[in-house]
Amino acid sequence: MKIVYEGPVFSVESGILAEPGGVRARRDIVRHSSSVAILPVHADKRITLVTQYRCAFRQQIIELPAGRIDRGETPLQAAKRELREELGLGARRWERLQRILPSPGYSDEAVTIFRATELFESPGTPDPDERIKPITMPLSSAVKLMRLRRIQDAKTVVALLQEKKRRSKSPVPPR
Amino acid sequence: MKIVYEGPVFSVESGILAEPGGVRARRDIVRHSSSVAILPVHADKRITLVTQYRCAFRQQIIELPAGRIDRGETPLQAAKRELREELGLGARRWERLQRILPSPGYSDEAVTIFRATELFESPGTPDPDERIKPITMPLSSAVKLMRLRRIQDAKTVVALLQEKKRRSKSPVPPR
Repeated sequence: MKIVYEGPVFSVESGILAEPGGVRARRDIVRHSSSVAILPVHADKRITLVTQYRCAFRQQIIELPAGRIDRGETPLQAAKRELREELGLGARRWERLQRILPSPGYSDEAVTIFRATELFESPGTPDPDERIKPITMPLSSAVKLMRLRRIQDAKTVVALLQEKKRRSKSPVPPR
Repeated sequence: MKIVYEGPVFSVESGILAEPGGVRARRDIVRHSSSVAILPVHADKRITLVTQYRCAFRQQIIELPAGRIDRGETPLQAAKRELREELGLGARRWERLQRILPSPGYSDEAVTIFRATELFESPGTPDPDERIKPITMPLSSAVKLMRLRRIQDAKTVVALLQEKKRRSKSPVPPR
């Protein structure tokens, strides 16, 4: 594989590959440093998502707080940094929810999704390239936005479905 | 934005953008023709997934049958073609399950996920660039593979969680 494009966020490699099964084909791959995303769950069970302008779609997209893993960081370290930078929050409890491969057909990016609870204020410095607007809401409102197709971001859809599943499993308090 | 790379599957655009909120920043975007994915549910309620070598990860990845939307196709037409090409199946019932944006931060790809039922044999010609191995299994086995991190593909995780939610909602037969 040869590097055919190098940018600040990703590079592109291209080449003719001999793959298991006897296929020889040209493949182009986006090389990305991988990302983390965080589902912050407050003491009152509300969650915080962010809206952010995404030029690929020329619109504001509702997503989990998220970001790239910097060189030398573990996914958990990156998640802690992003939660502080994007929401000014820390968390005493971190749980790995799910790792997803957004586009295995052409990108090597993986996104590790964490669930953060026992939140506390922990001001951080936002990335100057980003204008992020947090929105805190009940899970039911986020699930409704998903049904209305206002939330379509893959990591966010996965986290909302996982969180809904978890809450529907919680023991029902005795009547 | 200027095209800085053009390949058979995607191109890359780059430029300095003035975005709402007053941010001026360099952005690189992968332009992709978007995709469809299909969750085929058999009469006995088993589902069919596929394993496929993905060079980005140098391993076999378990995914929904899926593929790019060709020029002039609607997502549903593409889904019908892919189900025939990859599994040799047709379906009498199609339902739009979810549309996801795999990586809105750097790619304009959207994946429309369909649920296909009332399946019948309908042989198609597989893509010569692909070696795809179908696996038919109960939903519970696929959910277990997800828990064991053997299934991490985003569209597949979303479809499995949606299908699990749907089945847990189905009326319980009276005892």
